[in-house]
Amino acid sequence: MGGISGRGAVGADSIVLSGGYEDDIDEGDVIVYTGSGGRDSAGRHVADQILTRFNLALTVNEREGHPIRLIRGKDPRNRFAPPSGYRYDGLFRVTSHWHEQGKSGLMVWRYRLEQISDPTIEASSPAVGDAPGNPTPKRVPTTVQRIIRDTKVSKAIKAAYDHTCQVCGTRLDSGGGPYAEAAHIRPLGQPHNGPDIPGNVICLCPNHHVLFDLGAFSVADDYSLIGAEGRLTVRPDHGIDTGHLRYHRDHYLQKK
Amino acid sequence: MGGISGRGAVGADSIVLSGGYEDDIDEGDVIVYTGSGGRDSAGRHVADQILTRFNLALTVNEREGHPIRLIRGKDPRNRFAPPSGYRYDGLFRVTSHWHEQGKSGLMVWRYRLEQISDPTIEASSPAVGDAPGNPTPKRVPTTVQRIIRDTKVSKAIKAAYDHTCQVCGTRLDSGGGPYAEAAHIRPLGQPHNGPDIPGNVICLCPNHHVLFDLGAFSVADDYSLIGAEGRLTVRPDHGIDTGHLRYHRDHYLQKK
Repeated sequence: MGGISGRGAVGADSIVLSGGYEDDIDEGDVIVYTGSGGRDSAGRHVADQILTRFNLALTVNEREGHPIRLIRGKDPRNRFAPPSGYRYDGLFRVTSHWHEQGKSGLMVWRYRLEQISDPTIEASSPAVGDAPGNPTPKRVPTTVQRIIRDTKVSKAIKAAYDHTCQVCGTRLDSGGGPYAEAAHIRPLGQPHNGPDIPGNVICLCPNHHVLFDLGAFSVADDYSLIGAEGRLTVRPDHGIDTGHLRYHRDHYLQKK
Repeated sequence: MGGISGRGAVGADSIVLSGGYEDDIDEGDVIVYTGSGGRDSAGRHVADQILTRFNLALTVNEREGHPIRLIRGKDPRNRFAPPSGYRYDGLFRVTSHWHEQGKSGLMVWRYRLEQISDPTIEASSPAVGDAPGNPTPKRVPTTVQRIIRDTKVSKAIKAAYDHTCQVCGTRLDSGGGPYAEAAHIRPLGQPHNGPDIPGNVICLCPNHHVLFDLGAFSVADDYSLIGAEGRLTVRPDHGIDTGHLRYHRDHYLQKK
């Protein structure tokens, strides 16, 4: 059964993946992990999961960049699991969280975890962290807070909007050229598998990109914003797929 | 001799590192690369380098997240170089650029390159890129636009400012908690080797973090902004080291 070790307000230190959850996906370096709660003493899913305690802690890991240690337990159905007992399998980042209807029909919180392969990154807990205030770091132990990936489609959308944020109209001038970020509305990769096409990409300033990815706001089918004032500016030739907007609202938009 | 292949406005595709530049540093997975220009036909450094052509193209790679292919040429003084000829050594990100006085005493542009080890990242040029608009990406070929690393000191500074930007006062509310980023004034790592201490870290919103790292603005010793309106808000107990502010101004602030 899966388990999470950690403190709510400061993020989680480790999680255990051992086949107890029917919604979990393990691809080795990418894991879709299901939150805790909503189950009775026999492990049956009997209620919606809520975003408190460990479920909330994992969102702190995402927002603050704390890595999490993965421990896999024996699971005959998982080829990445050890043949017996438990095994420490390294550090992972929490790269996103969302909610959805689980296989049981009840609401679950889910988390995408990606393995950290960069040798300069170490966990930030006291167990393996650096001494605070090291004045002469050699390879500084750091955690990754945010990685923004870009595709050719992303570049085209940013160019079409001349690097102007579709939410606030900001166009960051770096002095050497404008800077903007492309946001996939329905995320790429497992388990969302959003397409890398213009209808699934919008151009945002970094501030609104963070807020969109964290579900602080979303976009209605008529492009009005939900969770923020105003509306998305959309070019007539930019056919945004409202199915992807709905996906973002249904999975990412935070309930107030 | 080093060389750069690429087009100014759209970034560079590849660079050649072969020991021609006295200021280059090769650590294998991290390279400090010196820009081109300012040399006579015998390779002597005779003038300040300027931020045009290939030097400018590398800043596009940084801002837009284009990876660059590294080719190393024979160089007996470099243990990472091939024993003879040239060798393709993989994809690197351009993670920062700045200007400084080179060993010759003249101004050079410098670039920090970091090797990309993530197998899901591919170069975005047509040679190895994906077909545009792939509707069902499996492992999406993506380029990394921006990686923000965090340290314990960073976390402490963000907490001290309650995740409020010291430039604009913005405090992004993700719904689940505030979000801010910590910026090292004098960067960590080679060749800057800025310390990971509170006096070298400020709390910024993502937008101002991008602009600060790209040198669109900097901070004077009296905390007034240069290249932007206003001044940095600094807590009385936050002793910012003005030597690090000067380092940022001298190396990153763009000349208007």
